[in-house]
Amino acid sequence: MTADEHLEAREAVSLDELEALLRIPSISALPEHDEDVRRAAEWVADRLRVAGMDFARVVPTGGHPVVYAEWLHRAEGPTILIYGHLDVQPVDPINLWDSSPFEPEVRDDRMYARGASDMKGNLLECILGVEALLRTEGSLPVNLKFLIEGQEEIGSPQLPEFVAVNQELLACDLVVSADGGQWSEEQPQITLGLRGLAGLQIDVYGPATDVHSGIYGGTVANPIHALAYILDSMRTEDGRITVDGFHDGVKPVSDEERAAIARVPLDTSEYAQSVGVEQLSGEEGYTPLERVWVRPTLEVNGIWGGFQGEGSKTVLPSEAHAKITCRLVPDQDPARILEVIAAHVEQHTPSGIRAETRPLPGSGAAYLIPHDHWGNRAAADVLSELYGVQPYLTRSGGTVPVCAIFQRELDAFTVSFGFGLDDERIHAPNEFLRLRSFRRGQIGWVRLLRRLGQEPTPDRRRGVSSLDTDTRAAL
Amino acid sequence: MTADEHLEAREAVSLDELEALLRIPSISALPEHDEDVRRAAEWVADRLRVAGMDFARVVPTGGHPVVYAEWLHRAEGPTILIYGHLDVQPVDPINLWDSSPFEPEVRDDRMYARGASDMKGNLLECILGVEALLRTEGSLPVNLKFLIEGQEEIGSPQLPEFVAVNQELLACDLVVSADGGQWSEEQPQITLGLRGLAGLQIDVYGPATDVHSGIYGGTVANPIHALAYILDSMRTEDGRITVDGFHDGVKPVSDEERAAIARVPLDTSEYAQSVGVEQLSGEEGYTPLERVWVRPTLEVNGIWGGFQGEGSKTVLPSEAHAKITCRLVPDQDPARILEVIAAHVEQHTPSGIRAETRPLPGSGAAYLIPHDHWGNRAAADVLSELYGVQPYLTRSGGTVPVCAIFQRELDAFTVSFGFGLDDERIHAPNEFLRLRSFRRGQIGWVRLLRRLGQEPTPDRRRGVSSLDTDTRAAL
Repeated sequence: MTADEHLEAREAVSLDELEALLRIPSISALPEHDEDVRRAAEWVADRLRVAGMDFARVVPTGGHPVVYAEWLHRAEGPTILIYGHLDVQPVDPINLWDSSPFEPEVRDDRMYARGASDMKGNLLECILGVEALLRTEGSLPVNLKFLIEGQEEIGSPQLPEFVAVNQELLACDLVVSADGGQWSEEQPQITLGLRGLAGLQIDVYGPATDVHSGIYGGTVANPIHALAYILDSMRTEDGRITVDGFHDGVKPVSDEERAAIARVPLDTSEYAQSVGVEQLSGEEGYTPLERVWVRPTLEVNGIWGGFQGEGSKTVLPSEAHAKITCRLVPDQDPARILEVIAAHVEQHTPSGIRAETRPLPGSGAAYLIPHDHWGNRAAADVLSELYGVQPYLTRSGGTVPVCAIFQRELDAFTVSFGFGLDDERIHAPNEFLRLRSFRRGQIGWVRLLRRLGQEPTPDRRRGVSSLDTDTRAAL
Repeated sequence: MTADEHLEAREAVSLDELEALLRIPSISALPEHDEDVRRAAEWVADRLRVAGMDFARVVPTGGHPVVYAEWLHRAEGPTILIYGHLDVQPVDPINLWDSSPFEPEVRDDRMYARGASDMKGNLLECILGVEALLRTEGSLPVNLKFLIEGQEEIGSPQLPEFVAVNQELLACDLVVSADGGQWSEEQPQITLGLRGLAGLQIDVYGPATDVHSGIYGGTVANPIHALAYILDSMRTEDGRITVDGFHDGVKPVSDEERAAIARVPLDTSEYAQSVGVEQLSGEEGYTPLERVWVRPTLEVNGIWGGFQGEGSKTVLPSEAHAKITCRLVPDQDPARILEVIAAHVEQHTPSGIRAETRPLPGSGAAYLIPHDHWGNRAAADVLSELYGVQPYLTRSGGTVPVCAIFQRELDAFTVSFGFGLDDERIHAPNEFLRLRSFRRGQIGWVRLLRRLGQEPTPDRRRGVSSLDTDTRAAL
């Protein structure tokens, strides 16, 4: 039996396994789900062990745990570290879900559940591919490690230190991130870049308590107006960021980059329709893809203050708050971005108002990999074969902070290899995964590992011979 | 026994009665308290009957009821309609209260409870004054009617029609509103003007659901940014309103008005301190008192949208909302103000965003009474005697829409006669009433009714002889 036949034969069982994993509400942002994140980690470690990986176990980090596993029995070929995450986003607004987010439901060959597309489906595809190779061939074409974290959706607070402390354990020639997606059902892509992230909360204070808007309206500064003024001062109407120092060091988009991006077709009206807006907007002088791929953003994710109930309450409120995240491009340092925004808020705080800023977790630098890196060539070969067309060279507007961390701590590039699609409502109500992608992804991993096994053994063999048994024992 | 002695003798009982009334959570804004508003109305009607008023009863309006009572046994003297309200504001944020809002607590000769200052204390002072006269003198110096409503805090939605339909029942020579206050514990005032009110909600819509701020940030308009832009476009930083047409018909403040206002001293640093701000703010070219008395305002009372929980959620939200109320000056029509704001919102809605506006209940025109009106002269005489100093001629930045309604429907001016003070945290946590004001108010009402009884019988005797028994029976 071939690996592909093995995968086809257990298709129904694999789907049951996906549902079992999706039923665990591993929301890393909410402390009441800490135990669920841990349960999901145990589930993944068990599944890796069943798949045939050695030493699969849940490892503490000080925050949500990670799962580490390895299979290091090849004398030749590169060492690959597969990265993924098992945590998911919160589910609110819950009333907009058509089915319960943690009771997976298949409708029209789509699996609806929180985490289906981001990224429990991707994760299981990869494990199933590895298992198919081990079951049918008795070994893997490469030396393989897994690092599956439980805190990606809250910005991986403990992961940087975990990777730094465990450089030897995680040493590899290439990271392959299963947390990625394709361009469409028919069109694959190689993702070359990811935007970085910097988040902060702005807390604005006016009078000591909510006061009467008739008695004080006109003489006491209103924190909501102050917040609106501060937020509006940060961007032009078309979304260009006007915070002093925000664009420091940002290189203009080169003609070559623009040309590469222009080769990727985008039906803007379909794109607009997919999110339910009549037209796209954004920074003048850039195409929609340039705006999300190579330009930084500053978006308010949430705002609140004063009376939010039914009817009317004539108060001049005491406080107002907003949460902001910025998506960053290479050469923007997240810490520096938080500094310039804090300075902007300070400079734009109206008199009679006190404003404070504080960083939110999840900062991460942007990331860029050369399009002709050997890992990308391998992925491109596999995707071309699977889809029958050459992949686009794309970027992602999102953030996977670990890519920059792996580069810094492990001196290894990360190739993105996942099968999610942009319309699958990740981070939103009614998230879903196409089951076609789930099947294709499993076969994709089998082929990718085989193709990576054909790469020449690197000069410097990392992560195999040097590994100290004590390092593992200490985990 | 004199009326004053009667009041002093039953002081402890009167305080118990105040506590009993304050214990009824008559929040008109919240449907779950409808029955409590009704209970408060029954309590007030009973108390008026006990005080010696004829025909005291709860009358339906289609919304929260009103209490009507009368005593019309004088052959001479004017007919006075006493106005007040028995409903109170909501109590949120409840966690900022030091004692439970509906379990009245006396601390340092102050009664802490929702409604203590606004205006159950004022209401009971007036009833107790009337009772003292009837008990000790057997009659009143004037013909008297009471109209106590249960919907003032939600803008009196049914009251205009009730007054219009019952013009004959409510006919009078003068309205005295018990819903008012004094300048300070030592300084009385005659309130000549009230600002009007116009409120609306702005609902801003972007993508059909919350979407990922990485994938869509930069190309899809963010409703929170749009709302911040819209709100910020409505005012300059110092609070001058920039909505086209908003100031149409607003007369410049005259030198005479400015001089009268300038005669009222204001310790701005004490005023700022009283609400816990470091400095006052507001429209350039106007003093603080001019800003709250004779200039219109536009204040956001509440705002919400997107993620408001702990930590970070990288969404570009689907919706954002704000509630606004404007305080208006004479010559501003509330309906017209709502129109110009709606037009402004439409003109300032960024592309890719849909914005809607809808009126909130509570609109009312501003009001102004001549300072030398006979009712004001009577009130001034009484207050001078009570406080030992002449009252200031002031205005209120707040709104009592019924003053304009009484003027239109009953052709009667309204004199304001109440004993609340501006620092008593009305509409806010830890509302309180000074018990000294509660005692002084009772005596004040005795003297005011006596003083009004000395006014010459008006040429046209209103509300007494012409009253049809059937009108009452139909109530």
